[in-house]
Amino acid sequence: MKHFKVAVLGCGTVGGGVARILLEQKERLAQRAGATIELGPIVDLFPSRSAERHGLDLSHYCGTGKDLTAEEATRYIRDILADKTIDLVVETIGGTSPFIVELAQDILKHDKHLVTANKALLAKHGKSIFNTATEHRRAVGYEASVCAAIPIIKGINECFTGDEILSISGIMNGTSNYILSQMEAEQRSYQDALKGAQDKGYAEADPSLDVNGGDAGHKLTILLQIVFGLNTGSADLSVRGIESITADDFEFANEMDCSIKLICFAKRDKNGVFATVRPMMVKRSNQLSRINGATNAVQLMNRYAQQSTLIGQGAGSLETGSAIVSDIVFIARYGEKAIRNPHMSDNKLRSFDELVFPYNITFETANIPGITGIVTTAIGRHQINIDTVSHNRYHASNAVFSIVTMPCTHQQIERAVAEIQGSHPNSLLADPKIIPILE
Amino acid sequence: MKHFKVAVLGCGTVGGGVARILLEQKERLAQRAGATIELGPIVDLFPSRSAERHGLDLSHYCGTGKDLTAEEATRYIRDILADKTIDLVVETIGGTSPFIVELAQDILKHDKHLVTANKALLAKHGKSIFNTATEHRRAVGYEASVCAAIPIIKGINECFTGDEILSISGIMNGTSNYILSQMEAEQRSYQDALKGAQDKGYAEADPSLDVNGGDAGHKLTILLQIVFGLNTGSADLSVRGIESITADDFEFANEMDCSIKLICFAKRDKNGVFATVRPMMVKRSNQLSRINGATNAVQLMNRYAQQSTLIGQGAGSLETGSAIVSDIVFIARYGEKAIRNPHMSDNKLRSFDELVFPYNITFETANIPGITGIVTTAIGRHQINIDTVSHNRYHASNAVFSIVTMPCTHQQIERAVAEIQGSHPNSLLADPKIIPILE
Repeated sequence: MKHFKVAVLGCGTVGGGVARILLEQKERLAQRAGATIELGPIVDLFPSRSAERHGLDLSHYCGTGKDLTAEEATRYIRDILADKTIDLVVETIGGTSPFIVELAQDILKHDKHLVTANKALLAKHGKSIFNTATEHRRAVGYEASVCAAIPIIKGINECFTGDEILSISGIMNGTSNYILSQMEAEQRSYQDALKGAQDKGYAEADPSLDVNGGDAGHKLTILLQIVFGLNTGSADLSVRGIESITADDFEFANEMDCSIKLICFAKRDKNGVFATVRPMMVKRSNQLSRINGATNAVQLMNRYAQQSTLIGQGAGSLETGSAIVSDIVFIARYGEKAIRNPHMSDNKLRSFDELVFPYNITFETANIPGITGIVTTAIGRHQINIDTVSHNRYHASNAVFSIVTMPCTHQQIERAVAEIQGSHPNSLLADPKIIPILE
Repeated sequence: MKHFKVAVLGCGTVGGGVARILLEQKERLAQRAGATIELGPIVDLFPSRSAERHGLDLSHYCGTGKDLTAEEATRYIRDILADKTIDLVVETIGGTSPFIVELAQDILKHDKHLVTANKALLAKHGKSIFNTATEHRRAVGYEASVCAAIPIIKGINECFTGDEILSISGIMNGTSNYILSQMEAEQRSYQDALKGAQDKGYAEADPSLDVNGGDAGHKLTILLQIVFGLNTGSADLSVRGIESITADDFEFANEMDCSIKLICFAKRDKNGVFATVRPMMVKRSNQLSRINGATNAVQLMNRYAQQSTLIGQGAGSLETGSAIVSDIVFIARYGEKAIRNPHMSDNKLRSFDELVFPYNITFETANIPGITGIVTTAIGRHQINIDTVSHNRYHASNAVFSIVTMPCTHQQIERAVAEIQGSHPNSLLADPKIIPILE
């Protein structure tokens, strides 16, 4: 049987999971890959701590067990790159420092396959990494980079290949979903739910990238590459986070039989690909509305197969590790055939705000007689049909109410709001909150 | 670019979907497969009818457009088998007649890849078909045979390969799920819901194989082969249908916050693989409880990735067609590497009745003072702990109540029931209905 040797760079949460699975599942993996997969050298700055945490023998680690200096680690990595017996390198260091960007390229340039969970790296440097890989006839595995244990990358590349994906909607960030779920289930404020998530280890001390949509944006950027052939940086994507979601929003959502989720959304039509990450009110008839806690889910609308939904764990040591190991098995089995440089199309990334969508608009107004008429009339003048108008909530002398529109564009709503603000200054006490409704 | 030619045998619902997709998606499929996939000859007994139904040009069909005799069809099939330019044959005739069993073998023996949606064929003759395929270095694609558009076969063979699947539970028959959903949503009787399903085309005139669990059993048999290496015929599987489910059962289920679904279930432990198809009460916290209508879903419990759920359409012309085309793409791309003869293990198929599971038991009793005590005492004597006892329903002089047990075996329950029947003859007016509860 063929022999396939794997080095692991960075043995923290994810790398440790990979190493454990490679050791525990030797026989099964060999059957599936048609090759014996051997765990080769591991490089980690803190070998003893890593070994203890993951129950691994120190002999797997480069060095003597003592903490490595950066120079030592770099030297061991250089040895691995030079080692012709190593077929594949797992990069589980993370980040997008120049060191990591160069390392990913170097692995491929030394004719080794690369497997990584690094979504930021692929979102920002995917094109050049895939090009290097193609040039050196090596594969890049990145199943773990999008929704960890959900096989969405192989799903798209290997499974839904008899179809044409028309749109994607998904919950791709576990931290923000956990926070939103807590806000909904326990009527907690955003700040309070965030603190709870931090206490339980679901959110980091600096949760920015999770709650501001940045992490989800990286994942959607990767999917835009492989589904729609868009070579767009995540910087071009319209991304909003969950920080401004309030208990009031959940109340309005509930009235419309919706939950609120941070949704990664993309839809192609003849004009281009409309994509965004933002909080949406999701109808309870949609499975995504019931994905709670740290679970992830991706829904594809296919031309032929209709709707497909994949649900699973979006994080975790062994969960993410299993996705990486599935890449290792795939590459060990299929070799050069596993090389897939995403086919770039001339699809244009379009602003989500131009897409026709139903919206919930929440207005906070001064208690002016006739304000509902003023608002609804302005909305009607911009060709927006109204589905429902909520009851007013009164906070002291202010009123809060929400309007659910029939499908229209965000731009239409903005123009209607500008008109209200122009003709009745001081009537709106804040910019209305405009949240799309996902059916 | 490589050229890959596909013949289609049987151009009814599914074959027609395949032909349409191959023609409509030429460019996308070529990108994915790394080969131009050409729709070659189609053999169908009724070419004109098929062409009209699927909007296909008659020139794709063997013959002149007139209905074919069986002899003519057989001759065209022989020509296709002899044609060295044809790489792959799609068998969408269906059934397990000796003709079909031999045809599947013949396709492979003529060194052509085989793609089929024929679950009964693979459940009954899988082993010998896979063996012939391996012998002739040809692949068998059967994604469409289990839950059509849900990529569960490639999911298991290509995606969840970094893991160990511990159990499977799924809704794999759309017809019975549609009937159960209607019974629940509209409080209809089984007969009434079946008739409704027949009127709407969701159930055939003879619905036996769908409602008696036979079709689901074929699908589970295929999964048992590839997940647990079990070479069991579906005849060995404990299969029960939905025919005996009543409105009362739904009422008891609802009291426990459950729905009722026809569940394909398999779980491996150190003693073997416990598998069954039968109606189960499914807790509403489980996503499977909310899969309604003709939709299918499969849930895997993995050692590392925890729970993964795949939801999609389990039938339909283009839905099933897209799964078949995904097999064509896969085989065109990976060639001989796509050959997977399921690895047979020495796992034993065990009776589900030996597995420890929570149950709902519904007793119909004569209105005997103390009957609840008699029943619960007998159950306790067989080491079964009781979770809840429902209120009695009175039908004339009979009482109906249900007991929810803590996990125990079906066999324990049978012994307790036998004891009640022995010590208090005539107290039970019917065999109690024993339904597992899926959490």
